[in-house]
Amino acid sequence: MLTIHHLAMSQSERVVWLCEELGLDYRLVRYERTSAMAAPAEYKALHPAGTAPTIEDGGVVLAESGAVFAYILAKYGDGRLACGPEDADFAEYLFWLHFANGTIMPSQIAGLVLRSLGVTAGNPLSDGVVSRVAQAEAMMEARLTAAPFLGGANFTAADIMNLFALTTLAIFAPRDLGPFPHLRAYIARIRQRPAYLRAMALAEPNRAHG
Amino acid sequence: MLTIHHLAMSQSERVVWLCEELGLDYRLVRYERTSAMAAPAEYKALHPAGTAPTIEDGGVVLAESGAVFAYILAKYGDGRLACGPEDADFAEYLFWLHFANGTIMPSQIAGLVLRSLGVTAGNPLSDGVVSRVAQAEAMMEARLTAAPFLGGANFTAADIMNLFALTTLAIFAPRDLGPFPHLRAYIARIRQRPAYLRAMALAEPNRAHG
Repeated sequence: MLTIHHLAMSQSERVVWLCEELGLDYRLVRYERTSAMAAPAEYKALHPAGTAPTIEDGGVVLAESGAVFAYILAKYGDGRLACGPEDADFAEYLFWLHFANGTIMPSQIAGLVLRSLGVTAGNPLSDGVVSRVAQAEAMMEARLTAAPFLGGANFTAADIMNLFALTTLAIFAPRDLGPFPHLRAYIARIRQRPAYLRAMALAEPNRAHG
Repeated sequence: MLTIHHLAMSQSERVVWLCEELGLDYRLVRYERTSAMAAPAEYKALHPAGTAPTIEDGGVVLAESGAVFAYILAKYGDGRLACGPEDADFAEYLFWLHFANGTIMPSQIAGLVLRSLGVTAGNPLSDGVVSRVAQAEAMMEARLTAAPFLGGANFTAADIMNLFALTTLAIFAPRDLGPFPHLRAYIARIRQRPAYLRAMALAEPNRAHG
């Protein structure tokens, strides 16, 4: 059986959500962060990368969000929550599937690092990062003005990948989404999905959801 | 026909290499960086992301390295340079395919940013980044001690994704690979591939290769 090792307040909440959307049988093991907000030693020992998410499946131990999503979708997705090459939405689906960890999250995380160093507004690096996050949000707003979901007509894994940046990661890097009404409505809408609520109740039982 | 928009000294060199390995017909448009090392305005105008790589294919305009690789492999790869779910190497292939942009490159880029801010050895953030890059190199060394290629028995897109971090990006963030003999031998070996040499002669004609 598939095992999801979930580190609290981390990207692995997306894997729980993915498995709930797919209706898979899986085992969830939850790990609290240390007082320094790091992964505990037991989590780091799961895979040489030491990062969340990490999953196990038979003899396979796999890390990296993009790899874990590709693995679960290919092994257990049966074509659901994805677009194939024959689909008109294929390129957009791929773009948004990779957008979370490739574009918006690196800029958000860079912003957190700069803030921890006391590098703030007025510094060109800080201003550059803020502008890249705003550009990413504006791209999402434009996309969600044109289509109901990031991947196009249907809810897909691309939506699951990106919501983390706008919810859990945004707890550390809060943003005013006032200028982006379609993005705000989208977030409110997909947070009401039953599979999301089930996943978050399991993955983050100490937070309010929905 | 597929068009690759290649920005000099950027991740888009990998897309040229991928297409040379697959023997595809494609059109290459090359863009020099500005004196500030930024992408020129014509490049930024190609896609809302404004980042390299960007490709065009019929009416599709696509950015994000991971998305561009997935698109080309699915549309034109015919199963080559990839592993499928039935392959024993599938999980490792996926891990290493995502490792470049998910693990080693973010740490290298964070190191460049910290250095530009004058944050150097002794600062916990700087030491943490250096240690994450060294850990990533040690993971590659361990993998290449166990298998001839990152994805396993065969050369795959996972190798194409990662070499950039060890060559072009390493020009900006040089590293001593002395402790990693298998990694050094691997780099020397895949840099001799005819498709790599053809790609780099086209993509980076002003640098020496091989």
